[in-house]
Amino acid sequence: MTLDSLRTPAVLIDKARALRNLDRMQAAANARGIRLRPHSKTHKSPVVARWQFERGATGICCAKLGEAEVFAAAGTADIRLPYPINPSNADRVIALLDRTRLSFIVDHPAVARQWSEAMTRAGRTVEVLVKVDVGFHRCGIDPSAADAVGMIGTVAGLPGLNFRGLLSHAGHAYHAHSEEELRQMAEGEAATLRDLVARCRRAGVTIDEVSAGATPPARFSLQQDGFTEYRPGNYVYFDRTQMALGAATLDDCALTVLATVVSKPAKDRVIFDSGSKTLTNDGARGFTPALGYGLVLRDDMTADTNLLIERLSEEHATVKALNGSTNLEPGDRVRILPNHSCVVSNLVDQVWVLDGDLVEPLEIAARGRIT
Amino acid sequence: MTLDSLRTPAVLIDKARALRNLDRMQAAANARGIRLRPHSKTHKSPVVARWQFERGATGICCAKLGEAEVFAAAGTADIRLPYPINPSNADRVIALLDRTRLSFIVDHPAVARQWSEAMTRAGRTVEVLVKVDVGFHRCGIDPSAADAVGMIGTVAGLPGLNFRGLLSHAGHAYHAHSEEELRQMAEGEAATLRDLVARCRRAGVTIDEVSAGATPPARFSLQQDGFTEYRPGNYVYFDRTQMALGAATLDDCALTVLATVVSKPAKDRVIFDSGSKTLTNDGARGFTPALGYGLVLRDDMTADTNLLIERLSEEHATVKALNGSTNLEPGDRVRILPNHSCVVSNLVDQVWVLDGDLVEPLEIAARGRIT
Repeated sequence: MTLDSLRTPAVLIDKARALRNLDRMQAAANARGIRLRPHSKTHKSPVVARWQFERGATGICCAKLGEAEVFAAAGTADIRLPYPINPSNADRVIALLDRTRLSFIVDHPAVARQWSEAMTRAGRTVEVLVKVDVGFHRCGIDPSAADAVGMIGTVAGLPGLNFRGLLSHAGHAYHAHSEEELRQMAEGEAATLRDLVARCRRAGVTIDEVSAGATPPARFSLQQDGFTEYRPGNYVYFDRTQMALGAATLDDCALTVLATVVSKPAKDRVIFDSGSKTLTNDGARGFTPALGYGLVLRDDMTADTNLLIERLSEEHATVKALNGSTNLEPGDRVRILPNHSCVVSNLVDQVWVLDGDLVEPLEIAARGRIT
Repeated sequence: MTLDSLRTPAVLIDKARALRNLDRMQAAANARGIRLRPHSKTHKSPVVARWQFERGATGICCAKLGEAEVFAAAGTADIRLPYPINPSNADRVIALLDRTRLSFIVDHPAVARQWSEAMTRAGRTVEVLVKVDVGFHRCGIDPSAADAVGMIGTVAGLPGLNFRGLLSHAGHAYHAHSEEELRQMAEGEAATLRDLVARCRRAGVTIDEVSAGATPPARFSLQQDGFTEYRPGNYVYFDRTQMALGAATLDDCALTVLATVVSKPAKDRVIFDSGSKTLTNDGARGFTPALGYGLVLRDDMTADTNLLIERLSEEHATVKALNGSTNLEPGDRVRILPNHSCVVSNLVDQVWVLDGDLVEPLEIAARGRIT
């Protein structure tokens, strides 16, 4: 199929750019001897995971068991869930262990004990890592808490659990205000983990793996000592937020939304057929907050900064021409760089892989697997 | 199935509440002799549309042709798209005309001409209404523009188009700051349309239908003169925004998200397994802006105002206990009233219709039909 024949809105993936992004991150990890385990949340596709494996990825991450079930069925051999899976899902974990190497995190003593009991009852063992909060203050144990090493030691000693090590996610990097702050976050994460590893080892707790991962600080994190694994997700496609965090240039961004101008109610206002059901209401983050719900691109894929996607309804983008007028007319097509590509992938049943002017459908096999 | 056996997150629909909401809106429309044509965007389900038809709805609205295709296939006989469909979709419109009564809006002279040409070429006629901007400043012609009546007359005269009348959507009602402002918006919309209808009729343009619709001002709009049709959507389920706009009480809200506490990293912080992939990042609107990404409910379905859903990641809700602690522990289940129910429906392949403690799956048949 050709690009022109697509119904809009449609999510496009520039394959050459995506592969280049994968090559670069893999090379950066290889250069430091750090295993790369991409998070599949951004693409949710075993096909794209295969591109990552072909370049040297040692496994992937999924967020939920439902996603892991899709990837395991597609033959993915090593899946890690950096998510505090509730033990009420023990039946699903046990079923998955028959199909793939599976690991997940624990960050709460009671939950770790429940998993231990469930796995012991089933006569099985599951690999776990302890999640460490390195500053995002979402999940994870507080590494400065008096009982941090004690909690890790307890998990390491529980039957039915094969304790592998520590895992962190520097999600606060998405809120960094400068390159320097981002660098400090990357250094701080590594230092926190190195210190905790040292304390664990002094206490006799074996730490085989130290896993971190996030796209914004990757360029700094992959220079640090102490990580055995890195888990970036968004880097396959990037987006407007990653540009604003210095992690990508516009030329690196591989996911765009193709939209049609469906109305021009005023000289300075056009309406695209791509609303929050495609672009999502996620705002852009970055050193300098970018306005609007995506960056409108010209035909040559440069930014059209005259057009501000001021407001989204579910099916409409209300777009203001800042200088008072635009040449766009109903029927014209535009491409939009979204603020956050992961959530865009999740909204569509398929994306279109773009190679020149030709497009091929790619099913988002793990879309909507929320449990 | 029982509620306890559901994997989380899960979207629940309280059937008794939803049917009560449908009964009330239908009764209010009937009392004024106004035809009710609910927008299906909130439920995206031909099953729920059937509940609406059984109560007297004369048709439904869909936003996109893809949704109309799903509803037409399910036997829906009368579908209106209050959306400026691009004429590149003429083949799909023609195919739909064989299956259902279909109408849509135009708000741009060039687009109207393109539709006229496409339908004339095909030897067909499609019903259209002219969309009028009553203050939301999204789509629609400016009713105060010098050429407003002229544009409507031109559309009314185009071959291949069967001009039915005018259509508006008071989307700015979602931004009202008070009951009084909302009332004024409803009155203003009706007055604008009555005035435009009068000017059209003086110019010899026949107006058979005057269609408006939005849930927040419905209680005021259905008291106005001049409408032949009303098109509320959200009223079937309501949500936290409608509560904050005075359109519903908590007891009216029929859609909730069932979530599990998956971590408790601090005494004053719990993590739910329901993130932006279920609750969406839509904020709450209303007379007094409500904070957070949904209202946490206690077991008795009253609001737990101690818990603020402070931040959403895709799979995590980071919830702060405002008074410093909460009794919730990992494994506990909570129900959450989302800020915006329409977008929640769109994120899941199925919802669960709740009748007492029993649940039955309901497919969201038109989910993801974005084109």
